[in-house]
Amino acid sequence: MLEQTLKEVIRDIQDFPKPGIVFKDITPILKDAALCTAVVEEFATRLKGMDIDAIAGVESRGFLFGLMLANRMGLPFIPIRKQGKLPFKTISESYALEYGQATIEVHEDAFAAGTKVLIHDDLLATGGTVVAASKLVEKLGGVVAGYSFVISLDFLQSEGRLTRFSDQIVSLVHYK
Amino acid sequence: MLEQTLKEVIRDIQDFPKPGIVFKDITPILKDAALCTAVVEEFATRLKGMDIDAIAGVESRGFLFGLMLANRMGLPFIPIRKQGKLPFKTISESYALEYGQATIEVHEDAFAAGTKVLIHDDLLATGGTVVAASKLVEKLGGVVAGYSFVISLDFLQSEGRLTRFSDQIVSLVHYK
Repeated sequence: MLEQTLKEVIRDIQDFPKPGIVFKDITPILKDAALCTAVVEEFATRLKGMDIDAIAGVESRGFLFGLMLANRMGLPFIPIRKQGKLPFKTISESYALEYGQATIEVHEDAFAAGTKVLIHDDLLATGGTVVAASKLVEKLGGVVAGYSFVISLDFLQSEGRLTRFSDQIVSLVHYK
Repeated sequence: MLEQTLKEVIRDIQDFPKPGIVFKDITPILKDAALCTAVVEEFATRLKGMDIDAIAGVESRGFLFGLMLANRMGLPFIPIRKQGKLPFKTISESYALEYGQATIEVHEDAFAAGTKVLIHDDLLATGGTVVAASKLVEKLGGVVAGYSFVISLDFLQSEGRLTRFSDQIVSLVHYK
């Protein structure tokens, strides 16, 4: 089963980026082309039948499977980037980090009003970034069609922060 | 012809990220799934016959087509990231920017000694980042097999900085 295979490959890094955090390292997945294909095919299977017009990926790790998945499904890919990185006119959304805040942006012509956008990132932790991404989609008149993550840290109980935008949440690997 | 099609889609942004620079915006390519497929197929065709064991992509925009290309060619993908982002043990390389410097890193177990690594990024400008990436590959005992870029700014004449590592440089779009 793919979830079990992925769990065997994903590497736990103790105390990264700071003491007390166990970081889920996905780089061993990227080394295995057949496994990357399996990841994208599993996303495609589980997203089939959902009404999606475009896939937005959150910089940087959301760019990895985000573009591959969009391509596999024949959909446009929309990069959501950190402040100051996108060159055309943007709209932005800030969100709280443990210390300070972060800001992400999207091009204001990234998609037309009414577009149904799936938001992709590699990992759902506290959900701060994808909540901000969801607000960006709505600010542009889009609809959040759902979410896809390689990994969900279920023990952080963040899915409830996303369901006010969409209850379509696909995660391939769950840590309870 | 693909180069002409890409040139029609790539958007010039004046004075980004600062006055006097004309930035090449690739985000319109990402909106077109068929064009993204054509980009990856063209890379695969032009890289065929080259002796490549793995593809390294430079954060962030090198992650986009880098992973797709690695997957298309059935090869491992190696992320090269900005300082402090990779969770396992890393080696690092710093390089000069116009003001100050930047540091990039790779996991020290990213590949075995002797691996032939193609370095991918979206755009070749002054070459500072990919020269640093090339040094990282050699520090780990790897061999730079070549380079792939969506865009080369030929007028900056940076290819000469790369040929001491490899003269295999594939760029889909050239600006003279």
